[in-house]
Amino acid sequence: MKKRLGSQTARIDSKPRIVSAVSMVGPKEGRGPLKDYFDIILSDDMNGEESFEKAESNMLYTVITEVIKKSNLTENDIDYLFAGDLLNQITSSSFAARDAKIPFYGLYGACSTMTESLSIAAMIMDGGFADYTIAATSSHFSAAERQFRYPLEYGSQRKPDAQWTVTGAGAMLLARQGDFPYITFVTAGKVKDYGITSPDSMGEAMAPAAVDTIKQHFKDTGRTPQDYDVIATGDLGRVGKKITEDLLKKEYGYDMSNIYMDCGEKIFNCDEQDTNSGGSGCGCSAVVDCGYIYKNMLSGKIKKALLISTGALMSTTSNLQGESIPGIAHAVSIEFGGMKNE
Amino acid sequence: MKKRLGSQTARIDSKPRIVSAVSMVGPKEGRGPLKDYFDIILSDDMNGEESFEKAESNMLYTVITEVIKKSNLTENDIDYLFAGDLLNQITSSSFAARDAKIPFYGLYGACSTMTESLSIAAMIMDGGFADYTIAATSSHFSAAERQFRYPLEYGSQRKPDAQWTVTGAGAMLLARQGDFPYITFVTAGKVKDYGITSPDSMGEAMAPAAVDTIKQHFKDTGRTPQDYDVIATGDLGRVGKKITEDLLKKEYGYDMSNIYMDCGEKIFNCDEQDTNSGGSGCGCSAVVDCGYIYKNMLSGKIKKALLISTGALMSTTSNLQGESIPGIAHAVSIEFGGMKNE
Repeated sequence: MKKRLGSQTARIDSKPRIVSAVSMVGPKEGRGPLKDYFDIILSDDMNGEESFEKAESNMLYTVITEVIKKSNLTENDIDYLFAGDLLNQITSSSFAARDAKIPFYGLYGACSTMTESLSIAAMIMDGGFADYTIAATSSHFSAAERQFRYPLEYGSQRKPDAQWTVTGAGAMLLARQGDFPYITFVTAGKVKDYGITSPDSMGEAMAPAAVDTIKQHFKDTGRTPQDYDVIATGDLGRVGKKITEDLLKKEYGYDMSNIYMDCGEKIFNCDEQDTNSGGSGCGCSAVVDCGYIYKNMLSGKIKKALLISTGALMSTTSNLQGESIPGIAHAVSIEFGGMKNE
Repeated sequence: MKKRLGSQTARIDSKPRIVSAVSMVGPKEGRGPLKDYFDIILSDDMNGEESFEKAESNMLYTVITEVIKKSNLTENDIDYLFAGDLLNQITSSSFAARDAKIPFYGLYGACSTMTESLSIAAMIMDGGFADYTIAATSSHFSAAERQFRYPLEYGSQRKPDAQWTVTGAGAMLLARQGDFPYITFVTAGKVKDYGITSPDSMGEAMAPAAVDTIKQHFKDTGRTPQDYDVIATGDLGRVGKKITEDLLKKEYGYDMSNIYMDCGEKIFNCDEQDTNSGGSGCGCSAVVDCGYIYKNMLSGKIKKALLISTGALMSTTSNLQGESIPGIAHAVSIEFGGMKNE
């Protein structure tokens, strides 16, 4: 009966299908190397709204409604929306859920939200509680910057290992059937904290959580990196990616070279676009997973992907009170091919 | 296969048992009418910590570890922790999860978190993904006050329909078997917003969500108020409770008189304890559900309870930007008696 492998992994026997995915990004992301994979590119990151926060919420609402349309469904068909974001009290998600009128469970996993929402959606679909669910998340550079760091008007200088919060929103729609990429395993993360305190060093803070979840996924499932065409962490950036790759090889013997990418490194031409270590934010792995990964799975270029969105769970208050930055990472295994339309 | 009734309710066939519950409150709650039902009462709401936020996180960690001990289990036995709180980026939960070392999915449902976490835990247990899960949440008067309203030092005057955030934490531990109260249905809420903008009028803002979820629970399950010994909303307070009771009767014909209580009204002697409309916060329904309701179920005084924690999903930013306050409510049906130990 128990569909649990090892200590942290759930086996998703019914293989919920990701029947559509929609990604929406800001102008800067729309000039980056993955621009051809995004469904909607804003020319103005205000998105027709009067505040950054409302712009973000509207982006999330847009990808939710677009993924429903793309699946030829209506809002009434969707059993649950699982969504969260970085803003205090996840207001982007709450206001988007208000307008979407779908039963809503709000999540907070910081930048791990894309795979957190996918994980919970997959388990609840497999439990037989839903025909259709949506997993979604968003972030906005300007909203995050003024909430977590400095008002943009200060023009503060960014540190070399700092990252750039992606302006973007992504949504995936899960269904029971169809010839689409499907979820096979989800590995839940534990919170890991190695004492990093600088909010400019998110990649370093989150790397131990990524390492722990990836290692545990392999242990629980008996898989190795060679079972995947792509292993994609969420937003560790160049610095965190290197730590993760090195630690997994040195500590656990898992060699991910050639198949390992980080969405934060991939979404920008970091040097030309002045994003230092790379992209970050809930929207980073959301748009790369919903855009680049999903479309490459549909076209057959990627058959097996392990997605690991990574979150830094601090607040400005915890930071000011001297707490270090705890990280978390949730993994979802997505595969396509070898399963007939049922 | 699909275990879904109507548009918002899940039938939980395996009936996960709530094998233990632990409630912990501050000194003010410990002087209130429900004091004999709480497991731990603090004499100092700083809880030995140096900030209100750390005091809250430590309370949450304490109820998590205590509920594990009370169940004669260890942290390694717990498959998932589902928790959230009111603080920005749910730091109370994240830091508690860091110390508890349990696979963690963070939630944000504002004061609806107790039944949100119970709902997701119940579905994931029923799906066969876990033997043991914990649903938990917390709030702290002083941490919430300075985050959402004013610094305590201002000594600002409270409006007549204002509520008092409960300093409290509650945790329930779910297992597959045992002769304990069990979960039978969970009804997911939709976000409802009737245009209330004052953060002093939370009860009014949340009442429409409570009405909608309770009405939908009855429609989906075919039950009526008379099927329950107790129907308990989370923290509508005296004002919101009256609106909810009136609307359910006038609009939908459901008469809840005699069996309807609100945890926020019940936890304080509102007039004597100067809490105006009553208690609020994630901890409010958490400690009343884990204390008063759960213990009265164990003793046989309550056989069927419908718990509806209620959340106001705004932030200070959304409020300052002129947004109204969206509400949400999630319902969980808990029953005891008539089922043999399996």
